[in-house]
Amino acid sequence: MTQIKQLKPQDEFEGFYLLKELEVRQTNATPPKDYFDIVLCDSSGQLPAKFWDVSPADKETFFPMGLVKVRGLVHLYREKPQIKIAKIRPAKAEDGVSLTDFIRSAPIDSNDLVQIIKRTMESISDEETRKIVHYCINKVEERLPSYPAAKTHHHAYYGGLAYHMVRMLELGEFLCKQRPFLNADLLKAGIILHDIAKPEEMNAEMGIVSDYSNTGKLIGHIALASGWIVEAAVRLGIPLESEKVVGLQHLVLSHHNLGEWGSPVQPQTAEAVALHFIDAMDAKLQMVEDALSTTPESEEWTPMIRGLENKAIYRLKI
Amino acid sequence: MTQIKQLKPQDEFEGFYLLKELEVRQTNATPPKDYFDIVLCDSSGQLPAKFWDVSPADKETFFPMGLVKVRGLVHLYREKPQIKIAKIRPAKAEDGVSLTDFIRSAPIDSNDLVQIIKRTMESISDEETRKIVHYCINKVEERLPSYPAAKTHHHAYYGGLAYHMVRMLELGEFLCKQRPFLNADLLKAGIILHDIAKPEEMNAEMGIVSDYSNTGKLIGHIALASGWIVEAAVRLGIPLESEKVVGLQHLVLSHHNLGEWGSPVQPQTAEAVALHFIDAMDAKLQMVEDALSTTPESEEWTPMIRGLENKAIYRLKI
Amino acid sequence: MTQIKQLKPQDEFEGFYLLKELEVRQTNATPPKDYFDIVLCDSSGQLPAKFWDVSPADKETFFPMGLVKVRGLVHLYREKPQIKIAKIRPAKAEDGVSLTDFIRSAPIDSNDLVQIIKRTMESISDEETRKIVHYCINKVEERLPSYPAAKTHHHAYYGGLAYHMVRMLELGEFLCKQRPFLNADLLKAGIILHDIAKPEEMNAEMGIVSDYSNTGKLIGHIALASGWIVEAAVRLGIPLESEKVVGLQHLVLSHHNLGEWGSPVQPQTAEAVALHFIDAMDAKLQMVEDALSTTPESEEWTPMIRGLENKAIYRLKI
Amino acid sequence: MTQIKQLKPQDEFEGFYLLKELEVRQTNATPPKDYFDIVLCDSSGQLPAKFWDVSPADKETFFPMGLVKVRGLVHLYREKPQIKIAKIRPAKAEDGVSLTDFIRSAPIDSNDLVQIIKRTMESISDEETRKIVHYCINKVEERLPSYPAAKTHHHAYYGGLAYHMVRMLELGEFLCKQRPFLNADLLKAGIILHDIAKPEEMNAEMGIVSDYSNTGKLIGHIALASGWIVEAAVRLGIPLESEKVVGLQHLVLSHHNLGEWGSPVQPQTAEAVALHFIDAMDAKLQMVEDALSTTPESEEWTPMIRGLENKAIYRLKI
Amino acid sequence: MTQIKQLKPQDEFEGFYLLKELEVRQTNATPPKDYFDIVLCDSSGQLPAKFWDVSPADKETFFPMGLVKVRGLVHLYREKPQIKIAKIRPAKAEDGVSLTDFIRSAPIDSNDLVQIIKRTMESISDEETRKIVHYCINKVEERLPSYPAAKTHHHAYYGGLAYHMVRMLELGEFLCKQRPFLNADLLKAGIILHDIAKPEEMNAEMGIVSDYSNTGKLIGHIALASGWIVEAAVRLGIPLESEKVVGLQHLVLSHHNLGEWGSPVQPQTAEAVALHFIDAMDAKLQMVEDALSTTPESEEWTPMIRGLENKAIYRLKI
Amino acid sequence: MTQIKQLKPQDEFEGFYLLKELEVRQTNATPPKDYFDIVLCDSSGQLPAKFWDVSPADKETFFPMGLVKVRGLVHLYREKPQIKIAKIRPAKAEDGVSLTDFIRSAPIDSNDLVQIIKRTMESISDEETRKIVHYCINKVEERLPSYPAAKTHHHAYYGGLAYHMVRMLELGEFLCKQRPFLNADLLKAGIILHDIAKPEEMNAEMGIVSDYSNTGKLIGHIALASGWIVEAAVRLGIPLESEKVVGLQHLVLSHHNLGEWGSPVQPQTAEAVALHFIDAMDAKLQMVEDALSTTPESEEWTPMIRGLENKAIYRLKI
Repeated sequence: MTQIKQLKPQDEFEGFYLLKELEVRQTNATPPKDYFDIVLCDSSGQLPAKFWDVSPADKETFFPMGLVKVRGLVHLYREKPQIKIAKIRPAKAEDGVSLTDFIRSAPIDSNDLVQIIKRTMESISDEETRKIVHYCINKVEERLPSYPAAKTHHHAYYGGLAYHMVRMLELGEFLCKQRPFLNADLLKAGIILHDIAKPEEMNAEMGIVSDYSNTGKLIGHIALASGWIVEAAVRLGIPLESEKVVGLQHLVLSHHNLGEWGSPVQPQTAEAVALHFIDAMDAKLQMVEDALSTTPESEEWTPMIRGLENKAIYRLKI
Repeated sequence: MTQIKQLKPQDEFEGFYLLKELEVRQTNATPPKDYFDIVLCDSSGQLPAKFWDVSPADKETFFPMGLVKVRGLVHLYREKPQIKIAKIRPAKAEDGVSLTDFIRSAPIDSNDLVQIIKRTMESISDEETRKIVHYCINKVEERLPSYPAAKTHHHAYYGGLAYHMVRMLELGEFLCKQRPFLNADLLKAGIILHDIAKPEEMNAEMGIVSDYSNTGKLIGHIALASGWIVEAAVRLGIPLESEKVVGLQHLVLSHHNLGEWGSPVQPQTAEAVALHFIDAMDAKLQMVEDALSTTPESEEWTPMIRGLENKAIYRLKI
Repeated sequence: MTQIKQLKPQDEFEGFYLLKELEVRQTNATPPKDYFDIVLCDSSGQLPAKFWDVSPADKETFFPMGLVKVRGLVHLYREKPQIKIAKIRPAKAEDGVSLTDFIRSAPIDSNDLVQIIKRTMESISDEETRKIVHYCINKVEERLPSYPAAKTHHHAYYGGLAYHMVRMLELGEFLCKQRPFLNADLLKAGIILHDIAKPEEMNAEMGIVSDYSNTGKLIGHIALASGWIVEAAVRLGIPLESEKVVGLQHLVLSHHNLGEWGSPVQPQTAEAVALHFIDAMDAKLQMVEDALSTTPESEEWTPMIRGLENKAIYRLKI
Repeated sequence: MTQIKQLKPQDEFEGFYLLKELEVRQTNATPPKDYFDIVLCDSSGQLPAKFWDVSPADKETFFPMGLVKVRGLVHLYREKPQIKIAKIRPAKAEDGVSLTDFIRSAPIDSNDLVQIIKRTMESISDEETRKIVHYCINKVEERLPSYPAAKTHHHAYYGGLAYHMVRMLELGEFLCKQRPFLNADLLKAGIILHDIAKPEEMNAEMGIVSDYSNTGKLIGHIALASGWIVEAAVRLGIPLESEKVVGLQHLVLSHHNLGEWGSPVQPQTAEAVALHFIDAMDAKLQMVEDALSTTPESEEWTPMIRGLENKAIYRLKI
Repeated sequence: MTQIKQLKPQDEFEGFYLLKELEVRQTNATPPKDYFDIVLCDSSGQLPAKFWDVSPADKETFFPMGLVKVRGLVHLYREKPQIKIAKIRPAKAEDGVSLTDFIRSAPIDSNDLVQIIKRTMESISDEETRKIVHYCINKVEERLPSYPAAKTHHHAYYGGLAYHMVRMLELGEFLCKQRPFLNADLLKAGIILHDIAKPEEMNAEMGIVSDYSNTGKLIGHIALASGWIVEAAVRLGIPLESEKVVGLQHLVLSHHNLGEWGSPVQPQTAEAVALHFIDAMDAKLQMVEDALSTTPESEEWTPMIRGLENKAIYRLKI
Repeated sequence: MTQIKQLKPQDEFEGFYLLKELEVRQTNATPPKDYFDIVLCDSSGQLPAKFWDVSPADKETFFPMGLVKVRGLVHLYREKPQIKIAKIRPAKAEDGVSLTDFIRSAPIDSNDLVQIIKRTMESISDEETRKIVHYCINKVEERLPSYPAAKTHHHAYYGGLAYHMVRMLELGEFLCKQRPFLNADLLKAGIILHDIAKPEEMNAEMGIVSDYSNTGKLIGHIALASGWIVEAAVRLGIPLESEKVVGLQHLVLSHHNLGEWGSPVQPQTAEAVALHFIDAMDAKLQMVEDALSTTPESEEWTPMIRGLENKAIYRLKI
């Protein structure tokens, strides 16, 4: 079965794919005819597709996030590859395909990632800090294994959020060894909490964000997480004025570094400075790694990456 | 008794004033001599002053925020008026002067201002909204009558914060009449809550801010107030996800309008847009009014006002 | 008759509408066929439309700004609703429809608005100021009742400019009561004059701006209005150096507040500061009000509003 | 007689100089003593100076802009050279010194410069354009020979404004030859008018700007000059709507190129684009030339130049 | 034969043109049909075109940069003119048309331009400077006559780079006469070297840039040219630390003036300041001249020009 | 002997210190008296000092960078501690003090640091890359052990540059393990080369930068290092067009990430993105670590740190 990433213009192919997006539209013909405007994906990538001969029954049969068997042809439309679907049917039990095989996901099993996060949480020596982190993780426990870290920016796949946390925890551990003046408890807590409210900020299914939630737009994950720390402290009986609560809120509030990037205060503790750079470095390097791994080896340049000043990455031939 | 605002170079004067700031310093002489570096103020303004002949006893006698009787001479130092103190003694009970006569304060008695704010709070028809506002006011009840709205920017005097709120409430009431689609409950609540955490953000005495608190620097009054709404909701048993709690947090979080001005989210409800402009208009017009009223009538231009793009205000002769 | 605002995909409808825009285009067919690319509107909103079967006679029959009877079908095109016109004919006298019923206009009759503006002008107590305002109003007298305040930004409808002025005058009156140090004459004059040259800057018909005039692009409404004050003063024999003329020019020149927003000088009189905020607050709140009232009640969010940092407005369910 | 530019720390000197600035101040001594805070200058440069032993008679004898004979010593104060005046007396008729010998001025006699400007004006072939230019020159006729082009930025000396115009006219003439599509009449007019209102914007004597005028602050030289074109057109009976009047206003209004630099519109005619670059190039190169010529040959670097992104200029040894 | 620039909607025409771009695409039909997506050009301008009835043989016959005879019809597509090709065949030897007649090129023969540049190079009196310039010119000798100065920004045609240099040399010569303190050798060298690496930065054929080279993206023409000066110095045995080498590198490195425009250092020699303004003025005025000459006389406004703050240029009717 | 860092106002002390800066100045007295304006330092920090009774012999005795024995008193001057020197004499051989004991230096011996750098260089597997790195290190071999990484920004002490490199190499090694797609050779080379030209950009002695060199100002360390790679390649016979040379230049040229921070191109290879973040993270965390370690334990806040958006760092009490 051909992977989406390998499809090139003029290819004819047949295989199972996921209907990531599907909308019924009408042509300009008289009378207008229905067609499907589709995004087909598998774990290697995604492509736009059209299915022109839609019957009334089809409209009751196909829905977003469904698995399908497709026969199609790739052609160029406005300089980008697009699939023209010749035949399509829903996957059946006997096809033996499973949704999770078709979505992009972190390179490590997300249950393992969550275990690592929890183990790190348990290793926080200060009890109150640990309890606050625990309280906040609990609020998103169900969504943590599946959520991406962003809509498109970086780690935008199943388990992306947990993967981002784990990689940051590794980097944080290295830094605490290299620079022992950093408080490891605080840095661990900051890394786990900094994006903990992302699942509240975005609506996602199977690691795919459909949109931002109302709360996400009106409050944002930064102020949301800061509020959860307040909630935890109130419920756990820890005074809001304690340096611990203030310090944890500060880590979360300042991690975007600048006001224009969404942080109402700038990093003013050693750990907050470290957190910002750990977050930025992990996000940017992951963008680079993902762009390189989803770009065909034959291409010298990746597509432009919005999070890197809209620059493309070049594959040096060294 | 001559008011500070009326003192001009070459004036000799005698009267009671407040030692707003006082530091002991040493001259470059050999051996170095102690002198006082002072800021003298009354309700009309303030001037720097020096007292050169400090005895050891003087150092035990004079402290910041104390009332004193001073005889002095005004001269120009680096193009600005400065007082050379010839004689100074602490005010005594029999002098019949009272601290509150010497500090700058809002033009309306601050207890009256607080009454207006509380009455407005009572007029909020939605019970949960009213209770949240009540909870937050309670947290600063003692400090509300005296606190300024800012260190130097605007309303920087005794009762300034309450005065700012009351003026904004008047403007808000006008707008709700002019544009009935605005929700008056929300706007009232937003006006009262938007700067409610300022007393936690800044350390002040008698309406004079000495500096920002640690919490103020690390969290800021915007995220602090948003956290208080969370705290109130948790204590009052109102779900954090309710549109009321989200809507109130949004008002507070967005009232500075832009990220670079400290708001992690931008106004996205009608009342949040209104709140931002009510706040900005009241602050800027008060800066203008205060600058004009503290500048001698003989001057065509006020000093430059930082909050107004560093422009001075001209007194048109019309 | 169904209002434009109420039309949803799949709706079939028939009624009278205004051809706000109409262009003849050709399809890609061989030989190419003519079709009409249309914007249909009524007072509730507008939608793009296509009429595919254009005869040579049709091309002589239909023109922009004409009233027509249309039968059509709404469908989605690139995720936005579009009308496919099945039948179209010009409105006839006996249809009893009138152009003014089909354009969007200010909620108050624009002749009444102009009367209010003139009455306010008459209430200016200083004679020279009043005469200058009178002179400038005269220059746009014919266009004042119909002109919008902007092309799309805010108050973009019949009478929008006069409506903007009247609302600002109300707000100005409130402020002069709240802060008596403001000069009411100047503020009234500033509000009436600040956008008085908009009808010279933009070409519009029935409240709909087609484009900016050459003069509008090369000089702009701010410098134009400032020039009109000069012209008025020269004709009325008032010295250009008088504080009145300088003060009025300053109000107009500075009302956009910053250089990057088009003001060559920044507000430096109390009334100029007030004028800027009155203008900004009225424009922004009107954008919010208009966006909410033209968005179907069923929608939680309005479309994004360019003038509000490209944010959409949320309808809190409180 | 030693020129100011040649004075170095430890130099003792005697000669005639101009009291560019003089203020009476008081020392911190008890009782305070009067002293003079002075800026001494000649045509080569200026230095701060102090005269410590001021008698009451001295205060009636010395004033700004007076010529004096001084004996003094140069020393370093806060890393900058300063003069300590040992002896000072007013210049007398028999000293045979004249004020104009002591001020910095353009390298060409300013009457000659004005003649060149007037001759260029006469060479404008379009009569109405010529008359408008003539009208505007008339308004500043008396001040044109002496005025500088700016307070400190560039051409800040006697005749600087006329010199700036003449150099720009030369460059404009070259460009019209190199690119014949440029309209020479317009470019000449634009160059003469672009800064014509500077004498109204700034108060200056003998080429030295003391401050900005009220009108200068409230309207600015750009809108002032645009208003003068309107005034000229009204008086000369040329319609304000004519392309000539609009085109000339556009040249003046757009010559600072960007809103943040004070232009309410951006250059939108060929001549307006040319004018902006001619102005910028002449101003910047003059800053460089003046900085190099007033910096001692022994120095590799000039002081930092504000108008050149605060960079200093290096004297390459080639 | 009708020039591209003169073609208007509804025009039918026949003539020879250059296939500047050509791509094979597929329609949405079932089965999809091939068509050509084309950009047709001649020396007067260019237009998009479609050829719908592509045979397999056609795909082997037509290629980019080939000359063709075309019969077509102009129509409007998305408000822009587009050509529908009815008939197309390759040009034959007997047609007597030559590629160079169909490309846009500088108004002066590019061999003459190169001669002028070389003659100027020979006139540099300092031997080492002259040799470095010579070395760098040698590196691009073959490409210098044909290369444009930019992809689309300015001088984007055959010989554009050399034409830009020559015009700048004229302006530089004028400036050295007007301001003799400028070092003519340095200015000549700076003008010739500043864009000398453009042919390495961009891939172009016949004056038409297809894209940036890898080296162009990774190093840029500024650092490339600076490196060439280093290379020249090493090969010629001139010390890298000499003021000559440093001064020439500085001219090249600083000519974009600001970091955000690509210069790692800002101009800090007189000639570097001059070079920046000569470059900017020539580029901007050429944009204006080219926009006016390629816009039909009947149009008042040119299209918007990206390099001029996205403003269009107005043709004043004077 | 009391360390500079421990001195508090009113302390009297005696000990050996380094005269980091010394200038002879004159008082305002008549006649003026000489005094020394001094910066005294040891390895813990530095303080300004004055010595008022300077004899002619003293002026021949004391010079910057000399060791002295001082008896003094600390007092507050403009709210900052300053030393009043009572007695001062040069250190003698028999005092047994050595210059290196008095300068601030990296926490690891700088010879060891250089060894680590060289060993890393040897571990680069690609021969040409290794040779280029070797060539560039050779150019600064003598200065590498002592040079700081910046004037004041970060690592501003003896061995600071080498220390910065070594810490970055550790972080780079970690990242190459965490993300094996990174090319370790390139990253090592990029880390060693990115600031290699700093010793050419700045003049320094004993780790203390006095100023920027002319070459440093005119070319900057980024373009300098890029030029050294060119020089190395020319000398070693490696083609300038090879991906190796281009890739190394790209690493150096892009490491400041943005044009406004001095990089003429932005990172466009994986290693260039990594290099930028490794550099930024190490510099910022070192600023934090240094600020905390040089701030007395008793202080909650460090001074403001320019490189951290001018924020101070808070010492959380956790």
